[in-house]
Parts: sequence; structure tokens; C-alpha cells
Amino acid sequence: MSEQKEIKVDACFSPKLYPVYKDDESIVVIIDVLRATSAICTAFHHGAEKIIPVATVEEAQRYKDSGMLAGAERDAVKIPGFDFGNSPFDYMGPEIEGKTIALTTTNGTQAIDVSKDAYKVVVGAFTNISSLCDWLIAQNRNVLLLCSGWKNRFNLEDSLFAGAVTHELLKRNPKINLGDGCLALRYLFQIAEKTPARFLAKASHKQRLWKLGLKDDIRYCLQTDMTDVIPVLENGVLVKMKK
Amino acid sequence: MSEQKEIKVDACFSPKLYPVYKDDESIVVIIDVLRATSAICTAFHHGAEKIIPVATVEEAQRYKDSGMLAGAERDAVKIPGFDFGNSPFDYMGPEIEGKTIALTTTNGTQAIDVSKDAYKVVVGAFTNISSLCDWLIAQNRNVLLLCSGWKNRFNLEDSLFAGAVTHELLKRNPKINLGDGCLALRYLFQIAEKTPARFLAKASHKQRLWKLGLKDDIRYCLQTDMTDVIPVLENGVLVKMKK
Repeated sequence: MSEQKEIKVDACFSPKLYPVYKDDESIVVIIDVLRATSAICTAFHHGAEKIIPVATVEEAQRYKDSGMLAGAERDAVKIPGFDFGNSPFDYMGPEIEGKTIALTTTNGTQAIDVSKDAYKVVVGAFTNISSLCDWLIAQNRNVLLLCSGWKNRFNLEDSLFAGAVTHELLKRNPKINLGDGCLALRYLFQIAEKTPARFLAKASHKQRLWKLGLKDDIRYCLQTDMTDVIPVLENGVLVKMKK
Repeated sequence: MSEQKEIKVDACFSPKLYPVYKDDESIVVIIDVLRATSAICTAFHHGAEKIIPVATVEEAQRYKDSGMLAGAERDAVKIPGFDFGNSPFDYMGPEIEGKTIALTTTNGTQAIDVSKDAYKVVVGAFTNISSLCDWLIAQNRNVLLLCSGWKNRFNLEDSLFAGAVTHELLKRNPKINLGDGCLALRYLFQIAEKTPARFLAKASHKQRLWKLGLKDDIRYCLQTDMTDVIPVLENGVLVKMKK
């Protein structure tokens, strides 16, 4: 491990705090595990060519009107008239093979929007965690875990995932220097590791999805390593990273 | 306990996020345990009459020029020419008895500034935690724990204290409804409870103070229940709450 430099890993708990954490050097990992970043990984795994993240429903509608497939979600509900919402199960069918999809969500696409000028922006979820962490370590570069949260508030599920990434990165390189956010998350993940679903039982967004009958979505999004794709932002468009 | 309503307690990890969390009903607890809020509690315990929190060094200087006692700290260091810095040990002498003190600090007074229009603003530290929690529960009203952080970043020590408050409030009223921030902090506090100093060993600000030789300050600020005073903001000025 002697060739590895000491890299710094920190977590930012809200897109609104990103300006406080941003620098020109760090890789930014976008996190919205329930459900946007899980859905994005799923779409690429099932053959989507590109995903255009947009901040507003109006922008998504313009892409839809131009004939493109488009997904739109607000407050955990699919917006009527769009092809897809925010559920990973929306992005598994043959109709997405080779396609470009415009996507707007309550939180995840907002986080991509604020960080789009970072050195590099990648998308993380439990579904691609090992592949993501292997790649991050190989870059030997500072990492910022950007939790999308819920309408700029801290949320438990994105923090839990950021803690899982912290844990995985430390396993691969024990010399990592953790910022205070990751120090806290590392502890949090150790508590949650065995039973993440129970850990999240009282989380506000899990309760929100539960009430909407989206139990299967939650279960899917908490599964690890369903795919090895790493979505990466290139010129404002998400593509599958070439490895 | 049948007369208690379900109160909501949440934590905000940065003054910059306060606008996302604020409402017209909640009591806001200002937290900057290393060291501003610990120092403020100490000053009132030792007889200070009023503390005027100001956001800038220039404002503090104007108060100083008018003949008032004034404290000023930036980046953990006392600003030359002022009477006091940010150390609790600065606020224990007979010279503060009955006096009004202007105070500006890197983080704590900024948090007071952003939340000054809240329903009620009180000051919390390990040094007054039991008295604070007894009073909070008696109000039977929503609480927002506002962590000052470090230059708008999450920090471990304020989060630890917010977790301790969450734990104490739950002991007094198990029906409390916790927001996602407090759900996370509750777990964090349970890990840290036995050995808070060790828990904070890698925290960035603890290391900063340690390098400045402020070990005694850290030890003092982590002691619980040194006082029963609760500083409260009245018309922009902190005074000792009348109970």
C-alpha cells in the first residue's frame, strides 16, 4: 500500500451545504438511495444509454415533448404523463435498451445539479457499492459523499449508505483521513450493518414510501451489489463508466 | 404523562441549513460545545448580567470602544486587544460579576444570529445539560437542536451533544417524535456515552484545540451539570433565564 497517498473522505448531508464542502479536486458521489440513485444504476444495468438529469419537471416535460423517454417524481410519487417515476422497477424493461432518458426527482437530480462542475461526479447506491468503492480507491483521490437528503434536510438512509461507503473504503485503504461527517457515519453504519431495514424503520422517508405501498422498492434499494455499473456525469449527461 | 403531547425534536447540523428547518413554533437550542456555548453558560454561572452576541469582530470592537467588556475569537484563537476569547476559563473571574459582555465567535454567535427570530432561543452545553433538558420537557413544545458546526460544516462534538440531549429528552418523555437527524444522533451518543473524549479523539476541532494546547478547555467543556443556568435570548441579548 506504500504507493497510496493519504486521501480525505468527507460527507455532505444536504445539497444546500455543497458550496461549503466543494473543491476542485474531489470526486463527488451522489447519494439518494431511496430511490433516485438506485433507479439510475438499475437503468444503466438494464441497458439505458444515457440519462439526462434535470432539475425541474418543466425541463423533463420539454424532453418528453421532443419524443424522448422521461421520468419525473416529486414527493415520492410519479408525475402523471411521464414514462417513469423514481422506482428502480420502472427501469428494468426492454423499452430502455439503448435509450436516452430525461429524469427529474425531488432530491437526487438536485444534488447532481449543484455539483455538476466538480472534478468528477459519480452515482452511488447499495446496488453498486462494491464496484463503486473499488473504483474510488483506485483513483487515489479525495472523495466527497454528497447525500441528497430530503428537501435539503439530513436523511437517515443516505447517511447510512455514506457510512457503508466509508466502511468499505477503510477496508480497502486504512490510511484514509475521515472528515467529521464520515467519522460519525462510520459509527452509524457499524450499528446498522446487520439489520439496515430495522435501522431505517423510523426514518421519515422510509415511512413515507411504506405508506405509499413501496415496500418492494425499499427492499430492492437496500440490496448490495446487484450491478457493477458506475454511472458518471459527462458534460451534464450520465453515462455508464467505461472501465 | 397523559397530559404530554407528542413533541418533535430534530437536529440541524449547520447554521446554513437553519432556513430549511426553521418554523415559528420550535424552541431553538444553540450548540457550540467547544467552546462558545460552554463559555456562555460559565459566564452566567459566574455572575455575568448580559451577553450581547454579535456576528462580526467589528461590532464587538465597537462595544469594546464604548467601554464594555468584549470577547472575540476566530479560528480558535482570542483576537488581540479583546478582554476575552472563547475559553470558559476566561469567564470565571470577579471582573464579570454583574457586567454586560459583547461576544463574537467563529461559529456559535453565527448560529445565534441566524436563529434570532425563532419562538425562543436558548443556549446548551454539557455543562448545563440536565437543567436544559428539564426545562425543555416542561415546555411541551417542539425543539430544534442547532449545531453551530465549524464554518458551516458538520462537526462531531456538537452532534455528540445534540445526541446527548436527544437521549436525555427521551428519558424524560419516551413519546418524543425524532426527526432523522436526532435518530442518527441518538445512536451516535449511545456509542460515545461511556468515553466521549475518546469518541472525539479524531474530531477535527478537538485536534485543532489540542494543537493549541487547550486540553483543559476540552476537559472542562465535556463535564456535565456544572451549572443550572439556562442562557436565553431576549431582544437579541442573552440573559440568565428566570426559573
